[in-house]
Amino acid sequence: MIGVKQARSAWRGCTNDPERRQPGGDGRALSLPLPGAVHTLAKTTHGLQRILLILPNLVDIRAAAQRIGPFIHRTPVLTCTALDELTGAQLFFKCENFQKGGAFKTRGATNAVFSLTEAEASRGVATHSSGNHAAALAMAAKWRGIPAHVVMPRTAPQVKRNAAAASGANIIECEPTLEAREAVLAKVLKETGAIFVPPYNDARVIAGQGTAMLELLEQVPGLDAIVTPVGGGGLLSGTAIAAKALKPGMKVLGAEPAAADDAFRSLQAGRILPSENPQTIADGLRTSLGELTFAIIRQQADGILTIDEQGIVQAMRLLWERVKIVVEPSGSVPLAAVLAHRQSFTKLRVGIILSGGNVDLRKLPWM
Amino acid sequence: MIGVKQARSAWRGCTNDPERRQPGGDGRALSLPLPGAVHTLAKTTHGLQRILLILPNLVDIRAAAQRIGPFIHRTPVLTCTALDELTGAQLFFKCENFQKGGAFKTRGATNAVFSLTEAEASRGVATHSSGNHAAALAMAAKWRGIPAHVVMPRTAPQVKRNAAAASGANIIECEPTLEAREAVLAKVLKETGAIFVPPYNDARVIAGQGTAMLELLEQVPGLDAIVTPVGGGGLLSGTAIAAKALKPGMKVLGAEPAAADDAFRSLQAGRILPSENPQTIADGLRTSLGELTFAIIRQQADGILTIDEQGIVQAMRLLWERVKIVVEPSGSVPLAAVLAHRQSFTKLRVGIILSGGNVDLRKLPWM
Repeated sequence: MIGVKQARSAWRGCTNDPERRQPGGDGRALSLPLPGAVHTLAKTTHGLQRILLILPNLVDIRAAAQRIGPFIHRTPVLTCTALDELTGAQLFFKCENFQKGGAFKTRGATNAVFSLTEAEASRGVATHSSGNHAAALAMAAKWRGIPAHVVMPRTAPQVKRNAAAASGANIIECEPTLEAREAVLAKVLKETGAIFVPPYNDARVIAGQGTAMLELLEQVPGLDAIVTPVGGGGLLSGTAIAAKALKPGMKVLGAEPAAADDAFRSLQAGRILPSENPQTIADGLRTSLGELTFAIIRQQADGILTIDEQGIVQAMRLLWERVKIVVEPSGSVPLAAVLAHRQSFTKLRVGIILSGGNVDLRKLPWM
Repeated sequence: MIGVKQARSAWRGCTNDPERRQPGGDGRALSLPLPGAVHTLAKTTHGLQRILLILPNLVDIRAAAQRIGPFIHRTPVLTCTALDELTGAQLFFKCENFQKGGAFKTRGATNAVFSLTEAEASRGVATHSSGNHAAALAMAAKWRGIPAHVVMPRTAPQVKRNAAAASGANIIECEPTLEAREAVLAKVLKETGAIFVPPYNDARVIAGQGTAMLELLEQVPGLDAIVTPVGGGGLLSGTAIAAKALKPGMKVLGAEPAAADDAFRSLQAGRILPSENPQTIADGLRTSLGELTFAIIRQQADGILTIDEQGIVQAMRLLWERVKIVVEPSGSVPLAAVLAHRQSFTKLRVGIILSGGNVDLRKLPWM
């Protein structure tokens, strides 16, 4: 892993790397999906053996906050006496379900899109996503006035597909497997020349996601712990970086469905163990950690909590009934985890990032 | 109508009235349902012919804000770009669906309960209500440590019945007609000796409801208009008093279902024309104006907008899908009215009071 300075200068166009300084070099020679993303230089044309992981840091998150500020919402923080009584903790809900596009994903996608040079941006952007990242990228691309191509599994919720379509994205359907997504995306990238903006395994996306925690720390001082959902790990990574830099004593926890517990198993094993086609109602958390998010979470998060499907639905219903807000299953996972492990949170001030609110209102899990 | 000073001194125990000064007089000789409520002195035992209406004013609303401050939420104000685009206005949603008990009703009920003398309070309180006022009164009574008896129509939503029960209220079922409610309530009052806290036709309840507008005016300066739902008229009355006292140029509008348009018809006719057993999804707006709310609304509100059932459901769904909040049908009526009359609101800064969020999540109107 490289240090702060290197990571920073690598942020746009990797100008610290000799190969990137060559005239006309646009980074594709490095077979990098995106300048500033996970850099596996072992694969370069020059036969370099070292492996570089560009870890974003607090400076990157602050820069992201500046960059995306004009476009995104500073979301409110809600509290709920009934849920405080139920958990024995003091809960502070950071409402990213109120974010533009209905999810925190708009932060990361907007940071990535507005980090692109004019030349890069003119090629358009592309991604694969189960939903919220697709809609977020489509929205960010619309703000920048460039095309967006999104590969979505045919099982993605209609509401998320509609959101991407509403921003004018070109939507390409695929089978709901990682292999299918990647194959279809590769074809799209080849055909369009668009820049790939990964849903989570990307330093700029992670820095963007970290801005929610930056805000929360300003809004609620003295948090003892923060719990976020963990799917691909972008939100947990950004959150951990912001939290540990500003308040090292704060516990940073991820929460995931027991049916998609790759983060839990990966941290235990010390290597990435992806979930194979996991079946969970939390459609945003079916993805598995990437190389970069695994490295950050392993280094900076304090643990992963898992929760069964019933617990997720119960927490979701509590948020709707008691807090009176629309939260999607994935966004309800942290509350579910706190409820299931309430003895660990007694009397603590606990931040919870409600990651999104994009739900098909005709198909509610308790009906 | 009497002036400010009289109304104020009449606020607790009517000590300005000779009859009320008699030792041991508790006001029941006046056949008043509640000290400080609508006073029809023509009915007194001494044969007085004058009719007094105690109109609350800004001073009362400020006093109510002080009184209820320790118990209720200062609710947030949300905005939504998508709905601004849809209406052509700038909308500011005052989220009383986030209020304690899930509705603004907690403001009025708490003000009434904490306005009672110790002697009055010790007798307990009682009311009839289709739901939110019942739950609110039960909660306020619990805070004061006194019993609450609530008469509810058997058609009241289960979620509202549960809320009243959760606060320990004694719930008495009745047929869903005004006559049945009043007859059953009279029986309860006689049997228990409890003090009647009306759902809307009460100066202290109205003053409490006005505190939402007081907050909104602090939170959002420069509003051009405010739209609230109107059922019995308590919220619209309190809102009009606060708005016109602090910002006389602001338009104050009520919104009601076309299927329960008693406020619209009453204002046109110049006398109260109740709706007879109206059929609307907006269960909180099936009641009709009272003597006091009619007088205030006639004097201080600028108009009533009506909206059909389909428009209410559409607005409710927009609030859930776009603003990501749980709002009940009654609370969605003002947005529905603004959407239906959008040409009147173009480019205006419009406050909308989302009156409540108590919905049976298993029975959503679009399913």
